[in-house]
Amino acid sequence: MPRKLISSGSDFEKEMAYSRAVVQGDWIFVSGTTGFDYETMTIAEDVTEQAEQAFKNIISALAKVDASLADVVRVNYILPDANDFASCWPVLRKYLGDIRPAATMISAGLADTRMKIEIEVTALREK
Amino acid sequence: MPRKLISSGSDFEKEMAYSRAVVQGDWIFVSGTTGFDYETMTIAEDVTEQAEQAFKNIISALAKVDASLADVVRVNYILPDANDFASCWPVLRKYLGDIRPAATMISAGLADTRMKIEIEVTALREK
Amino acid sequence: MPRKLISSGSDFEKEMAYSRAVVQGDWIFVSGTTGFDYETMTIAEDVTEQAEQAFKNIISALAKVDASLADVVRVNYILPDANDFASCWPVLRKYLGDIRPAATMISAGLADTRMKIEIEVTALREK
Repeated sequence: MPRKLISSGSDFEKEMAYSRAVVQGDWIFVSGTTGFDYETMTIAEDVTEQAEQAFKNIISALAKVDASLADVVRVNYILPDANDFASCWPVLRKYLGDIRPAATMISAGLADTRMKIEIEVTALREK
Repeated sequence: MPRKLISSGSDFEKEMAYSRAVVQGDWIFVSGTTGFDYETMTIAEDVTEQAEQAFKNIISALAKVDASLADVVRVNYILPDANDFASCWPVLRKYLGDIRPAATMISAGLADTRMKIEIEVTALREK
Repeated sequence: MPRKLISSGSDFEKEMAYSRAVVQGDWIFVSGTTGFDYETMTIAEDVTEQAEQAFKNIISALAKVDASLADVVRVNYILPDANDFASCWPVLRKYLGDIRPAATMISAGLADTRMKIEIEVTALREK
C-alpha cells in the first residue's frame, strides 16, 4: 500500500503538520492519542475514562485502514503523574489483554494540562 | 540495502555509542536531533531557531542516504517546556506541512539545559 | 516469522497487558527494560549497575528469538535524572560500541522510584 494519511479532522493536525496516522506498506504509525472526544472536543477529568477514550480514538483511526488493535506491536504510554498509571491497567487489559504488545511507560508532561494520559501505538499487519 | 551507519562526526557519537542515523533496507532511523550547529558547535537561545536548525540537521542526515523529510513516517518532539511548542509550529508547517507524519509531543528533560527542543524521526522509503 | 510474544514470566506483564518483546517478520520490539534482576526481583541502587542489568535483560529477551544486540537499530534511554547518564556511557560503549544504533536520551519519570534508567530497543534482522 502506498503512503496514505489518516486525519481525524481536527484543526490541530494542520497547525502542527501531522496526521492522526500514516499508513505505508504493512505499517500503521498512529500519533500520540489522548482522551479527547473529537466529536464533542471534551475530555473527562478521570484518567481511566481518558484511557478508555484514547483507545476508542486509536481503534477508530486503525479501523479507517481496516486494521485493529490486534495489529499493534508497540505501545508507548505517557502520563504526567506516574501514580495514575495503575488505575489504567484494567483498561489496558480490556483492550490489549490478548494482544500484549511491547510497551513502555514514562512520566512526562503533555501539551494540555487536562491530559492525564497519551498513548502512541505502532501497528504492523501480518502478511 | 545492508545496514549502514551515518555519522555527523561528533565525538559524542563515539562516547555514547550511537550513530546520527542507521539505514537498513527501506528504513532510516535518525537519532534524537537538537538545534546544535555541528559545524560551529553553537546553539541558538531561541526555541524557534533551534527547531529550524534541528530540521536542517535531520535533512542533512537524510540527504547522506538520498532520503528526505518526505520519507518521514513518525516524528517525536521532546521539549523541556511544553509552552515552547506553539512557537515551533510555523517551523513544523514549513518543513512537514505537506508530509504530515504521525507525531507525538512530550515535555521532558534533555541532555543539556541549553537544548529547548529535540526531534526524533523515523523514515521509510516507498518502494 | 508470524507474530510471537516473548515473556520474561513477570506478573506485571499480565497485569499491564504487555510482552517483554514482540517478534514479527524480521522485527523485534522490546519493551522498556529496567535494571531489575527478574530472577531475584532486586534492583541495584547504582545507575551504572542498573544499566548493566538492563542490557543483560535485553540480551536475554533477544536471545530467545535468536537475535542479539547487533540487530538493534534504535535505542531510547529514559532517566529520571539526566545527570546520571554520563556514568552509563562506559556501559553503552561496552554493549553498543560496535553496533552504534540510532539513540535518543530523555529525562522523565519511571514507574518505580528505584528505577534510574529504562532502555527501550527495536531490532531489525538483516535479510
